[in-house]
Amino acid sequence: MHTDLVAALDIGGTKIAGALVDGDGAILVRAQRPTPAREDGETVMGAVEAVLGELTASPLWTRVHSVGIGSAGPVDASAGTVSPVNVPGWRGFPLVARVRAVTGELPVELIGDGVAITAAEHWQGAARGHDNALCMVVSTGVGGGLVLNGRLHPGPTGNAGHIGHISVDLDGDLCPCGARGCVERIASGPHIARRALDNGWRPGPDGDTTAAAVAAAARAGDPAALAAFDRAAQALAAGIAATATLVEIDIAVIGGGVGKAGDVLFAPLRRHLASYATLSFVQGLTVVPAQMGTDAGLVGAAAAALGRREGAAAAGV
Amino acid sequence: MHTDLVAALDIGGTKIAGALVDGDGAILVRAQRPTPAREDGETVMGAVEAVLGELTASPLWTRVHSVGIGSAGPVDASAGTVSPVNVPGWRGFPLVARVRAVTGELPVELIGDGVAITAAEHWQGAARGHDNALCMVVSTGVGGGLVLNGRLHPGPTGNAGHIGHISVDLDGDLCPCGARGCVERIASGPHIARRALDNGWRPGPDGDTTAAAVAAAARAGDPAALAAFDRAAQALAAGIAATATLVEIDIAVIGGGVGKAGDVLFAPLRRHLASYATLSFVQGLTVVPAQMGTDAGLVGAAAAALGRREGAAAAGV
Repeated sequence: MHTDLVAALDIGGTKIAGALVDGDGAILVRAQRPTPAREDGETVMGAVEAVLGELTASPLWTRVHSVGIGSAGPVDASAGTVSPVNVPGWRGFPLVARVRAVTGELPVELIGDGVAITAAEHWQGAARGHDNALCMVVSTGVGGGLVLNGRLHPGPTGNAGHIGHISVDLDGDLCPCGARGCVERIASGPHIARRALDNGWRPGPDGDTTAAAVAAAARAGDPAALAAFDRAAQALAAGIAATATLVEIDIAVIGGGVGKAGDVLFAPLRRHLASYATLSFVQGLTVVPAQMGTDAGLVGAAAAALGRREGAAAAGV
Repeated sequence: MHTDLVAALDIGGTKIAGALVDGDGAILVRAQRPTPAREDGETVMGAVEAVLGELTASPLWTRVHSVGIGSAGPVDASAGTVSPVNVPGWRGFPLVARVRAVTGELPVELIGDGVAITAAEHWQGAARGHDNALCMVVSTGVGGGLVLNGRLHPGPTGNAGHIGHISVDLDGDLCPCGARGCVERIASGPHIARRALDNGWRPGPDGDTTAAAVAAAARAGDPAALAAFDRAAQALAAGIAATATLVEIDIAVIGGGVGKAGDVLFAPLRRHLASYATLSFVQGLTVVPAQMGTDAGLVGAAAAALGRREGAAAAGV
């Protein structure tokens, strides 16, 4: 019997996705449920169990050797619990134990969603071949993860790479996290849109005030829209440069809705990065768009589960 | 023949120190020369060779199995070169090759001075027993290094942990490095003194305008001196919180002259840290004074040389 597959779970505020994934990252079986995010914790867990039920019913299940979970954060990998901001019914919820109750004695690897995206980009996407990388998601929030010395760096609790909540403006606007001037407080999609509106940008007849609409206006030359993206790019550049200066990365990968804005984001981002990434050992840092699509969370959770086995094999256990 | 010792070099802008160090961190032989920092590169190398000459002349030299170098930065461990800011005669200077020319075929490990201090604090000092730590030197400049997953994290070029040059104030004052609002630009000793003077603090009859004099005034209740330390503490807190949020550390160790200010620094630092280190996985972060003395650079360089052998042994080579 080959035990060459892993089960992957991608748990977000909107959907709970599951898959059986092979060693090349190919998805062989899929299952998905909407996240009943406003319901109680057991109802949310019921949706996870429904997804797992479809996976364990597959004839391929006997080939599964481990389970990887990428979850909206914060997570606590050391305790095996999750407390997703957008799922209030789960606070310190023992997700690892509950998944193990379904999947038997398989090892379970839990990481935050930013770390999962990073695992996916490193394995199959834009960070492939880079031993030291930062991967980010810039959309409604700003998240991320790190690859250091050729390996995923989840940190002890699985939350490392939380670049959205580092302060780049210590006297800046208060962030819901409690700090001031966080990268997310400046560079997230909603904050780009807010800044554009504050600067005088007005949406078109469709009333679309998303960052995507601001990006379209910026491409058309609207100065307020351009200024809003420039400011977001400046904050992202300061955060990316800080990360490179602290841990030495040679590439930053940006995904998420704002990451899809193209040159409207990347041109000012590269210009600002030259201003903040000044020390000799970070001057070669490049910044590129993400390559993985909507399966990034699943592929990343699978990568974490596979990496766990590789790590264990390397340690001789 | 036991090969149980390492040779350590600590290369700074003021002195070049060398030692033979055993596996417990005890210094058995010492040598030292002033750094001829304003002379040409060969003259500086001559001082290094004089230090090495004393070490290789020791009867203990035959027990040395590797060489560790901690150098003022930036360094480039991958190229084996150093370009210390305060030693203009060395730009891309091939220090590793030149040391190897003296020491024969021994392996040589090159790290930045902030990384060396960190290795020392992790081995023998305040970060002992912590698998994830940031160690800093706050004095004329602000430097640092990281321990991640129980191991020193020098990064590919040996410069990781350069917390002095991350921006915590993206629109702030221009730093000599070219960026704005760097931690060093706010929290270094000279900037603490400058801010105190700008705020109206005046030195005593001895005319001492160092940060140590500002600290003494702050302890006596001088509001301008207290405000200068508070602002430095805020910048340090933002930088330390950013580091913890990015890589997950549970302790930050602060050494250097400013680190010796005691409660004048640590009380506001802990207060500000609670404001910036807000996410669940960083709330337990503690900040403590360094424990290592003036030998920290030598002990850290020795630790790096010892760690190299441990790493090689673990990898089976």
